[in-house]
Amino acid sequence: MADLLGGKGANLAEMTRLGLPVPPGFTITTEACRSYLRTGREPETLREEIADHLAALERRMGRRLGRGEDPLLVSVRSGARVSMPGMMETVLDVGLSDTSVRALAGQAGDDRFAWDSYRRLIQMFGRTVLGIDGSHFDAALAAARREEGVDTDADLPADRLRALVEEFKRVTRDRGGREFPQDPREQLALAVDAVFDSWNTDRARRYRRQEHIPDDLGTAVSVCAMVFGNLGPDSGTGVAFTRDPATGRPGVYGDYLRNAQGEDVVAGYRNTVPLAELERIDPDSHRRLTGIMATLEQHYLDLCDIEFTIERGTLWMLQTRVGKRTAAAAFRIAAEFAERGVIDDDEALRRVDGAQLAQLMFPHFDPAHRGEPAARGIPASPGAAVGAAVFDSARAAARAARGERVVLVRQETNPDDLDGMLAAEGVLTSRGGKTSHAAVVARGMGRTCVCGADTVAVDEAARRAVLPGGAVVEEGDVISVDGTDGSVHLGEVPVVPSTVVEYFENGGVVRDGDTGGTGPAGDGALVRAVDRLLRHADRRRVLGVRANADTGGDARRAARFGAEGVGLCRTEHMFLGERRRLVERLVLAGTDREREEVLAELLPLQRADVTDLLTAVDGRPVTVRLLDPPLHEFLPDLTELSVRVALGGDGEGDDARLLRAVRRLHEQNPMLGLRGVRLGLVVPGLFAMQVRAVAEAAADLRAAGGDPRPEIMVPLVATVRELEIVREEAERVVADVAAHRGPVPTVPVGTMIELPRAALTAGEIAGAADFFSFGTNDLTQTVWGFSRDDVEGSFFGGYLERGVLPASPFETIDPAGVGTLVRTAARTGRATSPDLGLGVCGEHGGDPASVRFFHEAGLDYVSCSPFRVPVARLEAGRAAVGGR
Amino acid sequence: MADLLGGKGANLAEMTRLGLPVPPGFTITTEACRSYLRTGREPETLREEIADHLAALERRMGRRLGRGEDPLLVSVRSGARVSMPGMMETVLDVGLSDTSVRALAGQAGDDRFAWDSYRRLIQMFGRTVLGIDGSHFDAALAAARREEGVDTDADLPADRLRALVEEFKRVTRDRGGREFPQDPREQLALAVDAVFDSWNTDRARRYRRQEHIPDDLGTAVSVCAMVFGNLGPDSGTGVAFTRDPATGRPGVYGDYLRNAQGEDVVAGYRNTVPLAELERIDPDSHRRLTGIMATLEQHYLDLCDIEFTIERGTLWMLQTRVGKRTAAAAFRIAAEFAERGVIDDDEALRRVDGAQLAQLMFPHFDPAHRGEPAARGIPASPGAAVGAAVFDSARAAARAARGERVVLVRQETNPDDLDGMLAAEGVLTSRGGKTSHAAVVARGMGRTCVCGADTVAVDEAARRAVLPGGAVVEEGDVISVDGTDGSVHLGEVPVVPSTVVEYFENGGVVRDGDTGGTGPAGDGALVRAVDRLLRHADRRRVLGVRANADTGGDARRAARFGAEGVGLCRTEHMFLGERRRLVERLVLAGTDREREEVLAELLPLQRADVTDLLTAVDGRPVTVRLLDPPLHEFLPDLTELSVRVALGGDGEGDDARLLRAVRRLHEQNPMLGLRGVRLGLVVPGLFAMQVRAVAEAAADLRAAGGDPRPEIMVPLVATVRELEIVREEAERVVADVAAHRGPVPTVPVGTMIELPRAALTAGEIAGAADFFSFGTNDLTQTVWGFSRDDVEGSFFGGYLERGVLPASPFETIDPAGVGTLVRTAARTGRATSPDLGLGVCGEHGGDPASVRFFHEAGLDYVSCSPFRVPVARLEAGRAAVGGR
Repeated sequence: MADLLGGKGANLAEMTRLGLPVPPGFTITTEACRSYLRTGREPETLREEIADHLAALERRMGRRLGRGEDPLLVSVRSGARVSMPGMMETVLDVGLSDTSVRALAGQAGDDRFAWDSYRRLIQMFGRTVLGIDGSHFDAALAAARREEGVDTDADLPADRLRALVEEFKRVTRDRGGREFPQDPREQLALAVDAVFDSWNTDRARRYRRQEHIPDDLGTAVSVCAMVFGNLGPDSGTGVAFTRDPATGRPGVYGDYLRNAQGEDVVAGYRNTVPLAELERIDPDSHRRLTGIMATLEQHYLDLCDIEFTIERGTLWMLQTRVGKRTAAAAFRIAAEFAERGVIDDDEALRRVDGAQLAQLMFPHFDPAHRGEPAARGIPASPGAAVGAAVFDSARAAARAARGERVVLVRQETNPDDLDGMLAAEGVLTSRGGKTSHAAVVARGMGRTCVCGADTVAVDEAARRAVLPGGAVVEEGDVISVDGTDGSVHLGEVPVVPSTVVEYFENGGVVRDGDTGGTGPAGDGALVRAVDRLLRHADRRRVLGVRANADTGGDARRAARFGAEGVGLCRTEHMFLGERRRLVERLVLAGTDREREEVLAELLPLQRADVTDLLTAVDGRPVTVRLLDPPLHEFLPDLTELSVRVALGGDGEGDDARLLRAVRRLHEQNPMLGLRGVRLGLVVPGLFAMQVRAVAEAAADLRAAGGDPRPEIMVPLVATVRELEIVREEAERVVADVAAHRGPVPTVPVGTMIELPRAALTAGEIAGAADFFSFGTNDLTQTVWGFSRDDVEGSFFGGYLERGVLPASPFETIDPAGVGTLVRTAARTGRATSPDLGLGVCGEHGGDPASVRFFHEAGLDYVSCSPFRVPVARLEAGRAAVGGR
Repeated sequence: MADLLGGKGANLAEMTRLGLPVPPGFTITTEACRSYLRTGREPETLREEIADHLAALERRMGRRLGRGEDPLLVSVRSGARVSMPGMMETVLDVGLSDTSVRALAGQAGDDRFAWDSYRRLIQMFGRTVLGIDGSHFDAALAAARREEGVDTDADLPADRLRALVEEFKRVTRDRGGREFPQDPREQLALAVDAVFDSWNTDRARRYRRQEHIPDDLGTAVSVCAMVFGNLGPDSGTGVAFTRDPATGRPGVYGDYLRNAQGEDVVAGYRNTVPLAELERIDPDSHRRLTGIMATLEQHYLDLCDIEFTIERGTLWMLQTRVGKRTAAAAFRIAAEFAERGVIDDDEALRRVDGAQLAQLMFPHFDPAHRGEPAARGIPASPGAAVGAAVFDSARAAARAARGERVVLVRQETNPDDLDGMLAAEGVLTSRGGKTSHAAVVARGMGRTCVCGADTVAVDEAARRAVLPGGAVVEEGDVISVDGTDGSVHLGEVPVVPSTVVEYFENGGVVRDGDTGGTGPAGDGALVRAVDRLLRHADRRRVLGVRANADTGGDARRAARFGAEGVGLCRTEHMFLGERRRLVERLVLAGTDREREEVLAELLPLQRADVTDLLTAVDGRPVTVRLLDPPLHEFLPDLTELSVRVALGGDGEGDDARLLRAVRRLHEQNPMLGLRGVRLGLVVPGLFAMQVRAVAEAAADLRAAGGDPRPEIMVPLVATVRELEIVREEAERVVADVAAHRGPVPTVPVGTMIELPRAALTAGEIAGAADFFSFGTNDLTQTVWGFSRDDVEGSFFGGYLERGVLPASPFETIDPAGVGTLVRTAARTGRATSPDLGLGVCGEHGGDPASVRFFHEAGLDYVSCSPFRVPVARLEAGRAAVGGR
C-alpha cells in the first residue's frame, strides 16, 4: 500500500502486522496530501479523522497528547511512495508546551532532556511550519554555546536550554509573525500541513526532476508516538542493514549510538559504535534486533535497512525499507538470494540494472588514496585514468607508443584527435558537454573522459593548463581523471581495476579466489553473481545484442563481451590517419582518371580492413556502413587554413590550392549537407569501391573455408530511390566479384533509418531494404533540430535544470518524438516486408532505459559499443522479465 | 476516352463522330501498349485485330494497303493521354514498296512525289524501327544535294530520288541488319511495335520526369489513311487555332503552306502564309475550315488547335486538341468564355493556374529588343531587372539612394546583403541554387534574381565580373537580368511592366482602355479577366490568405494584393542594419545590467516597428514571431574576422574581443543550434522585451481608437514546456502593460510547428497554443536532413536529374514526408483544441501545388510573400472547385 501510505507508512504498518515493536500511530494518506495540494486546503473530513485516530492512539497509550503528568508526544514524518531522503520535512516532539515540558521532565527524571526536546520542537516548528530561516535559531544556539564555553549543544545545561526556549519563542514571534502555539492539537494540525507543503519546495521539485519522480504523487504523513533514545545509558538509537550494503556480504551491519536520538547519529558529532558492540551493551536488545532483522529479510526477501531506538531497554523499530546498496552489493545479493532459492532468477534479474553493471565495469580510484579534487568537470565517460598530461594528439600518440601512460588534455576534441584519444588513458576537455565529440567518442572507445571542465584554462599552444586554484599543469605532469564523478586530481591516484572486466576479457571464466573483499575489485563472489545474472539475461532476452566495432580488435573484444555480431562498422574511421592524404587527393582530383586512381589505392586498404573485421567475428553478421561523413571532415579546418594562407601571403602554394577546395566543400550546416548516400551518389565510384572491398574480402574468406557474413548498410537515406540506386550498383558489383573472384555469400543490403523522412516513408523504403538499422543519434538531432556538437555547451544545462528536458534525448531515447518514429517505421516497414531485419546502432543501443524501449518496439537487436554489450544483454533480459 | 485511345486517337474519333472530314483509320489502345511494354511482346490477339481493322479500312477506301493500281498508304502515329510533343515516333507512307511506288506515281501523276515519299518511308522506318543513326541517311541526302547542286531536298529530281531509295535500302541492310521489308503488312506491324517502343526512349523518360507524367501510361497508336498536301497547287497543309493563343483574342489564327506535307511546315524552310490567304487561294476550303473550327470550339468549349491537309481541293482534319496558350491567353479565354456563359466561373477557374498568374505579375523584357544572352544562371525569382552592376551591398544601397538603378552582383548573398538587395532592381549570384539565400530572400522581396550563374567569375574585391565570352563587367556597367528565364544581358534591354501588378497596386481597379494588345502589358481585357477569376476564387476559397511582411510598407502592399492580415512578421529583420551594433553589445554584455540596458534601447525601436505594422493592417491579424536566428548571425563571419585579427597581429584590440565572442557563439550547425525559443530561454529578458514592444504598441493604438490584432508566435518549439514557459512570461508582460499603460487587446500566443518533434507531439503542444503556424521551410530541412544553404549547390541538381527527387521539396511540399507531419499535427492539435488556429508561413504558402495540399489538410490560412498573395488566392479558389 505504498501508493497510499508512502513507503515509510506502509512499512510501519507491515512491521506492525508482523508483530514487531513499532511505536503506535497512524498514517495520513497521500490522497489527502494530493487533495490538499490541488485545492490549497485540507480535505473536509481530515481534521475529524485525525482527531478520531489521535483519540484511539491516546486510548491505546493511556496518555493524552501534551496533557497530563505523562504527556504523549508524537513525531510527524513525511513518507512518499518513492524515497526522497532528506528532501521533505519532519517535526518531532509534537505535544510539548510550556506545561507539558515540565511533566516530561518529571517523567524522564531529566530536566535537560525535556528542555532540549522543547527547544528542538520550537526550532523545527519554526523552520518547517512558519518558514523561519534556520540561521536565526543557529545563531542563538551558537551564542549560548559560546557563553557557556562548550563545544556541542549536548553540553548545554538545562537552565541555558530553558533560556533558549524563551529566545526561540521570541524568534518565532518576531520572524514567524505568531506565538508558538501552546495547543498540542494545533501543533499537530499545522505540522501535518507543513509536511504536505514540503512536497513542493524547490529542492524537492529539483530532486524529483533529477530522479524522474512524478510531481503529482504527494506524500503521506506518519504520526507516531515518540520514543526516546536519549533517556540515559540504557537508551540509544541506531541504523542497521541486514547485510553489508557496500559489498553484499551476509551478516548484519550497522551503527549504534548510546543515549542519543536519531538526529544525533545523522549530525555525526558523536562517534557511533559498530552494531556488534550492542551485544555487549544490551545483549537482550541485540538478540531481539538480530531476530527482527532476520524476520524482515525473510519477509521482504531482500536487504533491509532499519532505524531503531532503545528506550530504557525497550527496543522500538522506527522504520524499515528495502535498503539502498552499491552496484556490487546489488548483484551479489540478488544472485545469492537466487542461489539460495529464496527468489527465482527472473526476480534476481529485476533487482539489478544496467547502470549498476556499467559502474562495475570501470576501474576506480582507491577511495583511501584520493584527496580533494583540483578541478571538476562533467563526468562524460566513466573510469579512472592516470597519465602524463599531453596537449595534442600527435604527441599523445607518440608518447603512448613509447609506453608512457598519457591523458589527452584539449579545449575540445575533433575527428583529428582519434589517434590521440585511442592512445590516451583518458581525455580531459575544458569545453563541451556529455554529448560533445570527446564524450561520445570516449564512451564509444571505453576511454575515461571528463569534459567541459570550464575552470581549467587549457592553453594548447603553450602546452599547459591552469587549474582553479592557480596550480599549473605543464605537459608531462601526471594527473588523475575520474570519469565517474568528474573530478581531476594532481599527481597519481592509485587505481583499482574492474574484476568484472577481467572476467569478460578472460572469456567469461569465473576464477576461484576470495569470496569477500570490500569493493567490486578482487571479488570472486561478485564475478559469480554477474555471471549468473548475465547468463540468465541471455536465456530470457528476445533482443539480440551486437556491437559497434570498426576494427578486428574491437570486434574480438566485443565478442568476448558477448556481442553476437557487429551491428555497425563505420568505414569513415578507415579514412583517417595516413589515409587522409588519399581523401585530399580524391577531393582535389581534377579528372575521372585521377579519382579512379585514388579509389584503386583505397580498395586494397578497405579490403584489408573488412577482412580483419570479418575474420574477427567469423560466422556472425558484420554490418558495414558505407561512408557517412562529409568529405570536408577529412580536410583541414577552414578558419585555421584561411589564417595560415593569409599569414603565409602565398596565394598559390599547396595550402592555397587546398584552401580553395576546402572553401568549395565548406558547408554552413555539415550535418545537413553533402554526406551519407548523397556523397555516394555524387562521387562516382566511391560506394562501388567500398562494396567491392566487402565482396572481395568475403569471397576470399569463403574460399579459405571461412563463414563471412557481411551486410551493406546505406547511411542517410531520405527517399527509397536513393537506396534503390545504391542497391542496384551494389548488386552489380557483388555479381562482378562473384564472376571474377569466386563465390560471394549473400550480402544483405539495408539502410540506416536516421532521418524523419526515412521513418515516415519506411513502408516504401522497406521495399528496397533487407534490414533497417535505426540511427537514433542522427534521428534525435533531426527530430529535435538539435546539433549535439552545438547544443550541449549552450543551453542543454539550462534546459535540464528547468525541466524543459526530463533527460538528454541523446542519452535516453525520447519516446514521444524519436520513439514514435521508431515504432512507426518498425510497423510500416514490417507491413511491407515481414522478414525485414530491425536493429538500432545509435548510442541508445547501450542505454538501459532505451534498450527496454527497443524491446517493446519489437526490434531484433541493438548494437552498441563493445563495452556496453554486457549492459545491453542485461537490460534486454530485464526487459523480457518485466524489470523496471 | 483519352486514357485508352490517347489524346490524338480520342480526338480523331470525336471529330469523326461530329461528321468532320477525318481520314479513315483506327486506333490501337494504350492497353495494348502497356501489355507490350510489360511482357516484351504484342498481346496475343493484336495481329489479328489489326488485320481485321485494316481489312475494314481497305473495304471502306476501296483500296488495298500497298497493293494494286491505287495503293492505300497509312500513317502510324503515337498519341499518349498527355501530349508529349516531339517525344515519340511517327512513321508515314507505310505501304510503299518497290511495286507500289510506281502505282503511286501513276495515280498522282507525279514521279518525284512518289519516290520522295518512298525514300521518306525508308528513312523513317530505318531510324524508328531499326534504330539506325539518322546521320547515315542525312549524309546520303547531303551528297545528293551537292551532286545535283541544289539547296533543298524538294529540289532533288525524281531520278536522283530513285537512286537515293536504292542507297537508303543499302544503308538499311548494312546498318539495320536486314532488307527493307517489301510486305506492307510487315511494315505496318513493325511500325506499330516501334511506336510502342518509343515510349521508353531516354528522351521520352526524361521528358516525363520533367513534366511529372507517370511512366506507366503507355501510348496509343493511330493508323490512318494517308492524305497528301503535296499533290500540286490545289493541295496544301496548315495549322490553326480557334483564337490567338498568345493573347486569347477571338478570331481564327494560323498558317498555311501550299503544296506541302506537315513535316515541311515544321522544318520551316518554306515560308507559310497567314490563314487568311487561304480564303483567296481556296475559298471553299477556307469556308469549310472556319466552319469546322467554330464547331470544334463549340464542342470542346475551349481554344482548339488543329492540323489540316487539303488534298487536291478536299479538306481533311488530321488532328485537333485543346490548344496550348500563354498565361495571358489562358486568363482571357477562360474569363471570356465564362462571361459569354459558355462555361461557368468554376470551370473558368479550373482552366487557369497560379503559375500562370505569377508569370503575369512580373515585368518582362521586350522580346523585340533582346539578343542572345551573355550568360545564363538559374531563374530564381522572376522579373526583368536593369541597372548598374554593383559588387557590394553598401555601395548598392548608396547608389540606389542617389536614384540610380542597380543590380547587385555577388558570389552569394548573406543576411548582411539585405539592404543591398532591397535597394537593387535585381540580384545576380554566381553560386547557390533556387533556395539559396539570394533566391529565397529575393523571392520574398519580389526582387528579380538569377543565381548560380557559375560561368560568371565574380571578383568582389576587384569589383568586376568576367563573363563566359570574356566580356568584363566593371562596377557601374549596365546589365539586364531576366529572372524568368535566367538570362543575363550586357547593356539595357527595354522592360515592359506588368499591367496585372499595376491593377493590384491601383487597389484592384480595372481601367478602361484597349481590349486587345499583343501581350499581357497594356491589356485591359487581361486585367478584367484576372479580376473576374480572382474575385470568383475569393468567393469560393475556404483557405484564408495572409502575407509574410516585416514592415508597414510590406503589409500595406500585401493588403493591396488581397492579404487578409500578416501571417508572419520576422522580428529578426529589425535587428539588422544600424541596430546590429546593439546586438553586438547584447552579446558582449558582461553583466545583467549591461544586457538590460541594451534591451531597454531596443524596446522603443521594436515598439515603433510593430506600431507601423499594426497600423498598416489595422483590424486584421498580425502574427509577430519572436527572434528566431542565432545571435552569431548578427556578428561578423568567424573566418574573415580570424584572418583580420591574425593579420592585424593585435591580440587585444576590439576585433580580438569580438573574435572571442564570435568563437564562443560559433556553431558547427547553426541551423540546429542556439536559436528560436532556445535563445529566448537562454538570454534573459529578450523575449519579454519583444512581447512588451508588441503589447505597448497594441495598447497605444487601441487608446488612439485603432483595432490592433497582434498575435505572438514562438519559433522552433520542440516540446510543450518551452512554449509554456514563454507563454507564462508573455502573459505576465501583457498583464503588466495592461496594468501600467492601458487596455491591451487579447494577444493570442501560438507556435511555429517547424521541427518534427513539434509535429509529433502536436497534441500536447496544442494544450499551450492558441494557434499553430507550420514553418514548412525548416520542417523540410529537418525532415529531410537537408540544409537548404548547402544542398542546392552540391547535389540537388543531380538528384532532380536522376529523378531521386521529383521536385525540390523546398518549392513544393513533399506530401509523403513533410506533408504527413503537417496532416498529423493538424489532426492531433485539433483533437486537443478544436478551436486551434492552423496556418502555414513557409514559402510553400505561395506555391500553387502546396496551396492545394494545405486546403486538403484543412488549414485555416496560408501566409506567403505579398507578391504571391494573388497566386495563393487563385489557387485556394481552384482547390475549392476541384481544379487540378
